[in-house]
Amino acid sequence: MIDFDHNATTRLDQRVKEAMLAFLSSPRGNPSSIHALGRAARDALERAREEVGALIGASSGVVFTSGGTEADFLGVLGAARAARAAGRPPRVVSSPLEHPAVRGALETLSDEGFEVMLLPVDEKGRVEQGDLAEALRGGAALVTLALSNHELGNVYDIAALAELAHAHGALFHSDGVQAAGRMSIDVHALGVDLLSLSGHKMHGPKGIGALWVKPGVEIFPLWKGGHQEKGLRPGTENVVGIVGLGEACRLARTEGISCAESVSALRDRLEQGLLAIPGARVNGDRERRVPGTTNMALASAPGELVVIALDLAGVAASTGAACASGSMEPSPVILALGQPPDRAAEAVRFSLGRDNTQDEVDEVISLLPVIVERIRAASFG
Amino acid sequence: MIDFDHNATTRLDQRVKEAMLAFLSSPRGNPSSIHALGRAARDALERAREEVGALIGASSGVVFTSGGTEADFLGVLGAARAARAAGRPPRVVSSPLEHPAVRGALETLSDEGFEVMLLPVDEKGRVEQGDLAEALRGGAALVTLALSNHELGNVYDIAALAELAHAHGALFHSDGVQAAGRMSIDVHALGVDLLSLSGHKMHGPKGIGALWVKPGVEIFPLWKGGHQEKGLRPGTENVVGIVGLGEACRLARTEGISCAESVSALRDRLEQGLLAIPGARVNGDRERRVPGTTNMALASAPGELVVIALDLAGVAASTGAACASGSMEPSPVILALGQPPDRAAEAVRFSLGRDNTQDEVDEVISLLPVIVERIRAASFG
Repeated sequence: MIDFDHNATTRLDQRVKEAMLAFLSSPRGNPSSIHALGRAARDALERAREEVGALIGASSGVVFTSGGTEADFLGVLGAARAARAAGRPPRVVSSPLEHPAVRGALETLSDEGFEVMLLPVDEKGRVEQGDLAEALRGGAALVTLALSNHELGNVYDIAALAELAHAHGALFHSDGVQAAGRMSIDVHALGVDLLSLSGHKMHGPKGIGALWVKPGVEIFPLWKGGHQEKGLRPGTENVVGIVGLGEACRLARTEGISCAESVSALRDRLEQGLLAIPGARVNGDRERRVPGTTNMALASAPGELVVIALDLAGVAASTGAACASGSMEPSPVILALGQPPDRAAEAVRFSLGRDNTQDEVDEVISLLPVIVERIRAASFG
Repeated sequence: MIDFDHNATTRLDQRVKEAMLAFLSSPRGNPSSIHALGRAARDALERAREEVGALIGASSGVVFTSGGTEADFLGVLGAARAARAAGRPPRVVSSPLEHPAVRGALETLSDEGFEVMLLPVDEKGRVEQGDLAEALRGGAALVTLALSNHELGNVYDIAALAELAHAHGALFHSDGVQAAGRMSIDVHALGVDLLSLSGHKMHGPKGIGALWVKPGVEIFPLWKGGHQEKGLRPGTENVVGIVGLGEACRLARTEGISCAESVSALRDRLEQGLLAIPGARVNGDRERRVPGTTNMALASAPGELVVIALDLAGVAASTGAACASGSMEPSPVILALGQPPDRAAEAVRFSLGRDNTQDEVDEVISLLPVIVERIRAASFG
């Protein structure tokens, strides 16, 4: 299988697996227990916490969650609710391109009486700082914008946007799930207050993630219960998953980001090759993207059919967020770029990673024209 | 280390570990992706779902969560909110002995305007059916009572209590975290609508759990986002953890429960041995308990000091819920039995499992009188 679906999930790194195995084979304590078994688990937890912090330039503030979705919910709901309780206006600002987890959190805030303002985006999915300033005019509790878009790969100038948010007294959350391990991240240079991460998007395990909360920033927990994670995330910790996340972050920091250039070159080669198909086009901002992602539309070929045909040919790709697949609806991200539904439904996301090769790229470049030709012939047959 | 703290967590079974390893080494897909990599992950997920159901006599309705805490929150909040939306009175009935996760969920419901009624309990922690009938007189959305208490091991007549709840139009949730794998569970015989489970309490992995929702019972999700778990639990699934939970449930069903008698005999031997210490007593309902648990008070010796001294001697025990440890406060469960704070602070929970031996029991029986003697001498100078 040629894996061009790294934005859905990534192969577990052998060394992450080994770190998890080593832990699976050793202490078995509950990190909250005061006896020796508990302490060993707690030590492993704290070492992993330091590694997660190191990846994003933070020495403290990492809270473990059950994944990126929970991290987004904890970050967006927790910060917005706490900011409102502290007297900030019940308003949150975001974009129409966010991941379903962030959109779900915004919907929840809307149910709770928050005003949710979505910034306009242009045909490439870009936002304007002037529009954010305008949206923030009456003050806000929180701004949330992803560090890298899950379908387009788009990267915004988060540092400038976060500065603008702060100038208007709003907190800034960023979903970093698709960025971590793919571009270098320094939370202090970015100026964000909250950042979400997910293990399985960077060769770590599924079912584990983290929210970084800037020390001094108050957020409300999603659940009240045990004292774990300083009360921000009750429940016995997924220690093996956390150990895996720590190792994945260490590898992303020491090795992963250095692959960015070669991954980018592969993505560009794929894109150039596929643009030779008549009518093919690229969705998103080609000037500012993460290395591995390209979102392409192969004119007159529905994306869902292209993905299925690629699957049969041994290639994994996607029409958009895996979280929304199974539906034939066009991606809300592509629709938000202003494309009509039939054109939006053509989008196919290729997301490459460090294990992909030039041979794989060339194979897909040679496969796709045939697939597209057949689909077009069948559609118009 | 002698592990008498199985209610905090349990050793990962070697076969569970192997099932997880086998999965870690094979497919790497996102279960929501439509391509082949995704399907392999989805198949593993569904096999595990069947195993979890088989343990509790259910053929469908299992929703995976990040652990027991989330399962309790999803069950209690999700069912109470949906029942209120469907017109049930905003009232929930529970006991003062519930796990911090359930208490946290009840606190959240209280914040949302629900009336939370806690049934009276007697000095052994028992509830009266008449009191439940009384509490339900005005109708209720939900009753939640644990299948087995985390500190005392108490087991209620859930079938009778659930029938009473249904007669008054209320749903019935039970926290089965401390019961699963320790006593046989048949959700249909019990008549519950919702049951929470946790992997790491039954020799499975940490950070994974499940909520069983009776088909036809509507609950609200905690988060809006992806479509996973039929929309009840968005977020990429922790597939390795789920595979481990499935195997742990299979082992609990085929082997674990058959150890009940021997575990019970060990617990009784320990209890008898420790009752020889002058002033020692047992907290809870000795007539109706899960096999492995005994909660003892060693008169005039604070439980926290006993646990620390045991730890130094290589024995893991606990003063109560691991989730609340680190605080010197007496357990709210023991306080709810009507004991004054100084006596309540004497409680020590020993929770035994299938790996414990008679030699270990005898060692603790010989150790503890010396420990208690020293603590008493130090306390009274």
